[in-house]
Amino acid sequence: MCVKALEKIGVDKENAEIVADCLVKADLYGISSHGVARLPTYVERAKRGLIELHPEIRVIRENSSIAVLDGGNGFGQVVGVKAMDLAVEKARRTGIGAVSVYNSNHFGIAAYYSIRALKHSMIGIAMSNTAPAMAPWGGAKSILGTNPISFAIPSSHQPIILDMATSKVARGKIRIALEKGEKIPEGWAIDELGLPTTDPAKAMKGCLLPIEGPKGSGLSLVVDILSGVLSGGSFGRDVGSTEDFSRPTRISHFMIAINISNFIPLEYFMTRIDKLITEIKNCPRAPNIERIYLPGEIELEEEKRRLKEGIPIDDNTFNKLLNLL
Amino acid sequence: MCVKALEKIGVDKENAEIVADCLVKADLYGISSHGVARLPTYVERAKRGLIELHPEIRVIRENSSIAVLDGGNGFGQVVGVKAMDLAVEKARRTGIGAVSVYNSNHFGIAAYYSIRALKHSMIGIAMSNTAPAMAPWGGAKSILGTNPISFAIPSSHQPIILDMATSKVARGKIRIALEKGEKIPEGWAIDELGLPTTDPAKAMKGCLLPIEGPKGSGLSLVVDILSGVLSGGSFGRDVGSTEDFSRPTRISHFMIAINISNFIPLEYFMTRIDKLITEIKNCPRAPNIERIYLPGEIELEEEKRRLKEGIPIDDNTFNKLLNLL
Repeated sequence: MCVKALEKIGVDKENAEIVADCLVKADLYGISSHGVARLPTYVERAKRGLIELHPEIRVIRENSSIAVLDGGNGFGQVVGVKAMDLAVEKARRTGIGAVSVYNSNHFGIAAYYSIRALKHSMIGIAMSNTAPAMAPWGGAKSILGTNPISFAIPSSHQPIILDMATSKVARGKIRIALEKGEKIPEGWAIDELGLPTTDPAKAMKGCLLPIEGPKGSGLSLVVDILSGVLSGGSFGRDVGSTEDFSRPTRISHFMIAINISNFIPLEYFMTRIDKLITEIKNCPRAPNIERIYLPGEIELEEEKRRLKEGIPIDDNTFNKLLNLL
Repeated sequence: MCVKALEKIGVDKENAEIVADCLVKADLYGISSHGVARLPTYVERAKRGLIELHPEIRVIRENSSIAVLDGGNGFGQVVGVKAMDLAVEKARRTGIGAVSVYNSNHFGIAAYYSIRALKHSMIGIAMSNTAPAMAPWGGAKSILGTNPISFAIPSSHQPIILDMATSKVARGKIRIALEKGEKIPEGWAIDELGLPTTDPAKAMKGCLLPIEGPKGSGLSLVVDILSGVLSGGSFGRDVGSTEDFSRPTRISHFMIAINISNFIPLEYFMTRIDKLITEIKNCPRAPNIERIYLPGEIELEEEKRRLKEGIPIDDNTFNKLLNLL
């Protein structure tokens, strides 16, 4: 359905499949906030000319281990995949590759790019700036995005996949509380004046808060610098929201691939990672904790389940998708 | 005093100066937990043969952009400086350099290494595993360290320096609460059974908690993998404590240097960073916030003040240092 909807507006099959695969992957992982529910907005933006259907993605600067990519204002997924694949190619030759990307768009879940390194027996790191939604620590106005960071690390069994926003929660969680008429916990957000709030309506007009105060604020800033500042793209308040139909988003990304076998024989790495995973899985549990999960483990299990049982989609989202066909 | 104390036990002047400079830098920054107060333990470990005075630091594997270093069980500062300098050298030629290090020791503040990249107009990233002090999320036993990560980014005026433990607080803060007979806030630590505690005595026997639950736990794990697992060194429960005099610590580090001018002309980068800094500094403030600080700004101001006014050192620490001479 997603591929068809994208082909209908003129996206090449190959690129439509990349965007669709990324969105469906998020739904398989159980992260519906970044799944197919995003497609209607993507399509609307493309129809209005805010996303290029046939982007010219160009290497602007290059060296043996790094590159700067102009995303040509293409779909974030199409640009992001090119960027990570280029980082992997460079890492294969020199041990590590890094690609900073400007002029892109919302790229879905950051893990979609970090996990691309896994099949090459590499460690993948992916990050992106996003529209301002978070105040810097001490501030009362959104300057930084929820700027996610993802790490993917291979093991013999299943990979370790960390994918985290640098904000305490995603805006989506506050929107859900608003729709349900529920309060939000203190610490998630501040209102327009910068005061802590538990009212989701006030929080939606205010700012998200970073994880652990200055630490999350600092991490978000670093992501913005490696993505937006270093690439020559948009950063800070200049990054556009996917819901602002007056302008392109000009989102920036940063990708790193680390070629494990340049550091240590791959089998030895796997033995060691497996040992560390076993240590963690066998850790005595805190009271009322049934199981200790590795980063990404819940998502990978959900993926297995949903590949068998299907992805639950609410009627509203499903009807919106039908309307795109 | 620190250099003399180290020379007295046989450390070369050059290496003694590196260790001393790192410890004093921490004190200048106001981070006394990682300052000269650490020297008596360092000296004691060296005297017992747990740290090599004349380490053979060797490149074990190498490629144009990466290296694995055997730290020869030298002082973490001596090894860490070598590692970051090698990463910088590689980044100068290829755009990015990464060095994973095993068989090292406590290296002081992570920022000491990330800031070394600044004078080369590079972005520095430094991290290290540390002795188990934190339970993985959901666990009740220490497997992961407080595993710090530091980023240093140049600007026209003063650099952005983020240096953060992946635990909510350092163990030192709990020790201080214990000495003062104060309670600790909930969320800092759990007791031996894995239950939340506000009693510093119980916390010292239990585990620290990660920042933001699964996020900090995941970040700490990633640091351990990039440092310990990827280098072929110690990781997880196998990393030794500086206070355990029965064995070497076998700490591992990971350093990255990113050569800005390979991505974007340096002056343009500086203009852009300055703009982002201005945006943040001019952000409307939350109520009762006098000023918005950038990562590292408090430390850099403290450094200026202490360079003029001196470093306050408590009598106990000072006497211990005198005893080393």
